[in-house]
Amino acid sequence: MSDHRDSRLKVLTHDECMGLLGSHRFFGRIGYSVDGVPIILPVNFVVDGDSIVFSTTRGSKLSWLSNHSRVSFQADHGRPLDQSGWSVLVHGVAQEVTDPAAVAAFQLGPLRSWAVPSEEHWVRISIDEISGRRLERRIRNLHVAAAL
Amino acid sequence: MSDHRDSRLKVLTHDECMGLLGSHRFFGRIGYSVDGVPIILPVNFVVDGDSIVFSTTRGSKLSWLSNHSRVSFQADHGRPLDQSGWSVLVHGVAQEVTDPAAVAAFQLGPLRSWAVPSEEHWVRISIDEISGRRLERRIRNLHVAAAL
Repeated sequence: MSDHRDSRLKVLTHDECMGLLGSHRFFGRIGYSVDGVPIILPVNFVVDGDSIVFSTTRGSKLSWLSNHSRVSFQADHGRPLDQSGWSVLVHGVAQEVTDPAAVAAFQLGPLRSWAVPSEEHWVRISIDEISGRRLERRIRNLHVAAAL
Repeated sequence: MSDHRDSRLKVLTHDECMGLLGSHRFFGRIGYSVDGVPIILPVNFVVDGDSIVFSTTRGSKLSWLSNHSRVSFQADHGRPLDQSGWSVLVHGVAQEVTDPAAVAAFQLGPLRSWAVPSEEHWVRISIDEISGRRLERRIRNLHVAAAL
């Protein structure tokens, strides 16, 4: 049995991470810690310049953010068929967008809370740190194995 | 414009959450806090009785677990087409599976680290708390709107 030690696992660059978040993916997760235990909840998001913006309704996420602001944001894509995928993790500071002009712009844009659009709020997360990994398609290794 | 306040958002029961984790989904995320900031990383998992088992290689996840054990586990599915989806969040205690018989059983099973199968370890997370939500398909609301 050949050993492909980490050969498929690639550390992504900043630009590769930003590219993955910016293209095709509108479904991610916000993470924040309560008493040392992470709460991980899905959010709809867009990349806006050098930040992440997600929409949410007035609820537990927004209440928590008013008192704490260091959060994580994560998005990924897994493909069981060939065991490939990628994930990107962001650390940053979250702040509700309250500027009326910015809110008006978001209301015209594609980002909507899936749950209750009429009560949506927008939250911006600065991208202070971003990291990611990609697991390449297994088929590449099969080609290598066939050639050896 | 009609207001569908929360009409599509359903809180899932324990059994519904377990059912979602047990059927069809093998790709989730483990979350643990480092200095109050969540680290969220993808894992392959299976439900084994009343616990979650995921596979990983000897790396940052496993090193962290040797010193800390309170973790979160999250899985979800989002469907942008009709803005539906679900998410399940588990809190529990993680412990590496070291019993040789249990390890041998896992080695015969379907759960594999996608990255480096030859160096995989298995970690069991007790399901101490489980919660979940489902956002139902928007098409139902469209039917209601058409009927009004």
